[in-house]
Amino acid sequence: MLTLTNTLLDHIKIVMVNTSHPGNIGAAARAMRVMGIKHLTLVQPKIFPSSRADAMSSGALDVLRNAVVVDTLAEAIEDCQLVIATTARVRHLTMASYSVRAATLEAVSRLNDNSTKPIAFVYGAERTGLTNEHVDLCQRLMNIPTANDYNSLNIASAIQVTAYELRSAYLEWLDKQDIVDFNRSDILCGETTPNQVNRSLQSCSQADREHFYAHLERVMIKTAFLDPEKPKHLMRRLRLLFNRAEPDQNEINILRGILTSCEKFFKD
Amino acid sequence: MLTLTNTLLDHIKIVMVNTSHPGNIGAAARAMRVMGIKHLTLVQPKIFPSSRADAMSSGALDVLRNAVVVDTLAEAIEDCQLVIATTARVRHLTMASYSVRAATLEAVSRLNDNSTKPIAFVYGAERTGLTNEHVDLCQRLMNIPTANDYNSLNIASAIQVTAYELRSAYLEWLDKQDIVDFNRSDILCGETTPNQVNRSLQSCSQADREHFYAHLERVMIKTAFLDPEKPKHLMRRLRLLFNRAEPDQNEINILRGILTSCEKFFKD
Repeated sequence: MLTLTNTLLDHIKIVMVNTSHPGNIGAAARAMRVMGIKHLTLVQPKIFPSSRADAMSSGALDVLRNAVVVDTLAEAIEDCQLVIATTARVRHLTMASYSVRAATLEAVSRLNDNSTKPIAFVYGAERTGLTNEHVDLCQRLMNIPTANDYNSLNIASAIQVTAYELRSAYLEWLDKQDIVDFNRSDILCGETTPNQVNRSLQSCSQADREHFYAHLERVMIKTAFLDPEKPKHLMRRLRLLFNRAEPDQNEINILRGILTSCEKFFKD
Repeated sequence: MLTLTNTLLDHIKIVMVNTSHPGNIGAAARAMRVMGIKHLTLVQPKIFPSSRADAMSSGALDVLRNAVVVDTLAEAIEDCQLVIATTARVRHLTMASYSVRAATLEAVSRLNDNSTKPIAFVYGAERTGLTNEHVDLCQRLMNIPTANDYNSLNIASAIQVTAYELRSAYLEWLDKQDIVDFNRSDILCGETTPNQVNRSLQSCSQADREHFYAHLERVMIKTAFLDPEKPKHLMRRLRLLFNRAEPDQNEINILRGILTSCEKFFKD
């Protein structure tokens, strides 16, 4: 089942229990897919398959077509090494609830260290959430932080946040491994469009910078903005400003061009 | 305007530009509200207000009723100290794109250290995203990681992830306040030496930045350095340069002072 592609996130399973609205199933599929998570299991969904789910998936049809439908949560998680229940409320005082960030870091770390048996994140019905009997089947209780005075987190949004944290944990893990994943979009961003303004690759030299500062100083003295008798910290302030920007060769040329154009326009 | 409640997140502004579907505006309001973020600005929404938005907000009507509708992105961000553009594509190689986590940590840290002028997160239209002209108005480019082979992140989901990260950063900041109190670097950096040039703590607003760019443009047109008939990318290049430097209020005043001193010295 877990062979659609070949990343660590393929061993993550999202489980939706007794979902009422098919639109939420479609939105969840999209939320998962955009973060590279593909395995969805539905426990007694009210309506599935459904054209509403397809429409809301916005093209993430592979997730919906490969979704597994089962009768009980027990069946859904049978093959899992770790099962994490999502809850907005705290009801099992005996089971400590941890954050979605901690949960996703644990999941990625276990998939790396331990075994590739799946790890499940479980979400209850829209209105009622998970029952105590559902939570009893899980090893962990996870929460997503919400405002005190309004905690109506949509189920697909909860899955979006979890999937985002899973992807973040996965990318962090990749970085630590020194593994170059050529599928990462941040590596593939070299393409440019005609509208693009590229920074020139040529960094300027210290001499270029000094010529610019000298030029700027001459202009400011000429216009009486800078009094050479009482320079105060003006040049230092301007150096700090431009040093932060780290102008490249092209930008230094533009700045000097502006100064020259002003000089040509000055009264004698 | 920013007085509905009294947390650091009240100084965050979510800006949606040219949103097509009112349902997405409602879903965005819910996504924000559940994370305790209340200020929404809509730039030329296709349909608003709308019963569809109300329904999708799932009770987060306070966000919709208090939403500000404006004609241009420039108006939306006029009062902001920092404006962060969200993009799926990388188009400005000159403006480094950073992660949503880094962006939200920076936002929370700035609101604590610096000033309570708002910080905006900007989202483009569903199909087309932000234009280059929109991005030109922003100081940062932020991305949300997605799968390489499917990157269709719903706009309300993008706002959900951002709002979740903002809340996480805020909660982390609250935690740190309890544990560490006197080790905060912003408390310890007060001392100055006579030679030291300190950056003023006052960050400038978007309006200040725009006034400077307009002033610079006027001067360059006057000296014929900039041909308004063939502007090419000159203003964009200069914006990128100064955006990298992030001039504070004092520095903007110096730059405008230089421009004014040149204008006074120009031939008629």
